[in-house]
Amino acid sequence: MLIIHSDATRHRRTRTELFAGQLVAPFECPERVDYIIDRARAEQLGEIRPPDSHGLEPVLAIHDKGYIDFLEVAWRDWQAAGYEGEAIPNIWPTRRMPGGPIPRHIEGRLGYYALAGETSLTAETFEAALLSKDIALTALDHVLAHGEPAFALCRPPGHHAARDQYGGYCFINNVAVAAQQARHRGCERVAILDIDFHHGNGTQDIFYERSDVLTLSLHGDPMDEFPYFLGFANETGRGEGSGFNVNYPLPSGTDFPSWLQALEDATGKVRHFSPELLIIALGVDTFENDPISSFTLKSEDYLEIGARIKRLGLPTLFVMEGGYAVEEIGINAVNVLKGFDAA
Amino acid sequence: MLIIHSDATRHRRTRTELFAGQLVAPFECPERVDYIIDRARAEQLGEIRPPDSHGLEPVLAIHDKGYIDFLEVAWRDWQAAGYEGEAIPNIWPTRRMPGGPIPRHIEGRLGYYALAGETSLTAETFEAALLSKDIALTALDHVLAHGEPAFALCRPPGHHAARDQYGGYCFINNVAVAAQQARHRGCERVAILDIDFHHGNGTQDIFYERSDVLTLSLHGDPMDEFPYFLGFANETGRGEGSGFNVNYPLPSGTDFPSWLQALEDATGKVRHFSPELLIIALGVDTFENDPISSFTLKSEDYLEIGARIKRLGLPTLFVMEGGYAVEEIGINAVNVLKGFDAA
Repeated sequence: MLIIHSDATRHRRTRTELFAGQLVAPFECPERVDYIIDRARAEQLGEIRPPDSHGLEPVLAIHDKGYIDFLEVAWRDWQAAGYEGEAIPNIWPTRRMPGGPIPRHIEGRLGYYALAGETSLTAETFEAALLSKDIALTALDHVLAHGEPAFALCRPPGHHAARDQYGGYCFINNVAVAAQQARHRGCERVAILDIDFHHGNGTQDIFYERSDVLTLSLHGDPMDEFPYFLGFANETGRGEGSGFNVNYPLPSGTDFPSWLQALEDATGKVRHFSPELLIIALGVDTFENDPISSFTLKSEDYLEIGARIKRLGLPTLFVMEGGYAVEEIGINAVNVLKGFDAA
Repeated sequence: MLIIHSDATRHRRTRTELFAGQLVAPFECPERVDYIIDRARAEQLGEIRPPDSHGLEPVLAIHDKGYIDFLEVAWRDWQAAGYEGEAIPNIWPTRRMPGGPIPRHIEGRLGYYALAGETSLTAETFEAALLSKDIALTALDHVLAHGEPAFALCRPPGHHAARDQYGGYCFINNVAVAAQQARHRGCERVAILDIDFHHGNGTQDIFYERSDVLTLSLHGDPMDEFPYFLGFANETGRGEGSGFNVNYPLPSGTDFPSWLQALEDATGKVRHFSPELLIIALGVDTFENDPISSFTLKSEDYLEIGARIKRLGLPTLFVMEGGYAVEEIGINAVNVLKGFDAA
């Protein structure tokens, strides 16, 4: 399988993540990519190519322009305010604080555009987010041109980024940008199947009122897990999009057989939708030893996941999302792709 | 003037405040009260009495029960989750994440009930918040019983706390609890005049649809200042409360003459409302050297503020809110009360 990868993803290396009331070394770190690419090489998974530049247009087809402009200037404005840490929001518009203008001050703007505080914004953030979507779009080019699968080794991840909100380590929603680009290039129907441990709230937000992009997500029950405020089973789409968003919130401790049942239901819905392109939001934080998740999948299970996805018989783009047990992330991510190739 | 004070306010001493992307020593610290009480003693401002216990009922007359229950158990649940820092939210319900259930997990619940992240929640927080409202209610008892002014030396402050949200160092809205208690005790109309540098967003939230409690706030323009998402001039109340909320957002660098113009307009509105009780949300972070504010008032100006408030000729309860230039906070707060007494 073709792999799109860039060493430049390592340029985003934050120092701090707000976790458990402390500033800790970030779980979302450059070594995640190293582990995956090393394993892909060791397993001779396929050719590794760098991304091509795709500009901002595909991003603005999905994201709010004011939001993207904010990402571009946020670090500059944060520094200009004299702030010495990495940019972390500490106030946000809450329930019953709606409708006012977007603040001028960077502290207010940061909170306006953030949905979570664990994701420090730094000097390299905007460039890193652009690089990541270029990785996704270059892999998409290959799938569309040849009908062959491809793996976009994106970092930072994207599925938590909403139309105009960042958080959960995500800034630009790579799968959403790719899906919209595929629509633009002539695919009538695109399905995004999110198998990351966490709900793909950003992807859901972006396509919630549309019937041309089916979004499905298997994830930890938001009653107990990030992102807490979205990802419930009764969120099924709105208006034109009614019935085109499917959530599978699963309890803490979910094992592979139970998880696979949800996957089977989801792939059934994908089959029924009959998309021209399938995008897999590939997180492997469902792994039993992931430090911030609570499912119990084992490394060999990821081979089976790949095989099940392959059975759909669809042009398939894999886009890397989460997975934080750094030592096994390479094995698990590559196992999905190996399982797909072998089936 | 009678002063209600308790040494126990010092029991809430947090270690960390999220500020500028770092965890710093909190601006809202026990020494704030020490400076004020020392100055009050030095100036022989009046008798100092401890607060009486007033129970939870006056709190639940204003705040959501689920919110108060949360404050009571939050630290226990945070610790049970194994988190080692002080409780700081790092995810919250944002725009287009409405309406879901309140999360089970403490991380989600914390974000659900928080409006800002600078305010660490700790073992002593709930007790401290209860003590603070007892200080306000005890001072209120005196005003209602004798028609004489009183000063509630509250800590933590309260005016940012909304019906079911904490933040800005505030948990229970002391002025709102006192105003509602005064209504309960027979005052037909109560006015709350907030002269803290920051908008009294919580107080506004609580009384926004009511005409029996007039709320007025002079503060830094939320386009540039905390709390950013509330406090604009066009927020004038809703329904029954239309016309009974008045905001004076003032630009960075506002000096005393300009500030006094806004105060004169506000006192004119108070006079026209003809309340039976006036509550002053007394912040002195309008001071020129306050570390987190941007007005330029000088210490002698606070004498004049007290005198202007006295001219209203109303039973008056002063309730301490913000002010962080610890060395001068005593002089400035006491100057307001001295100016009032002397006029």
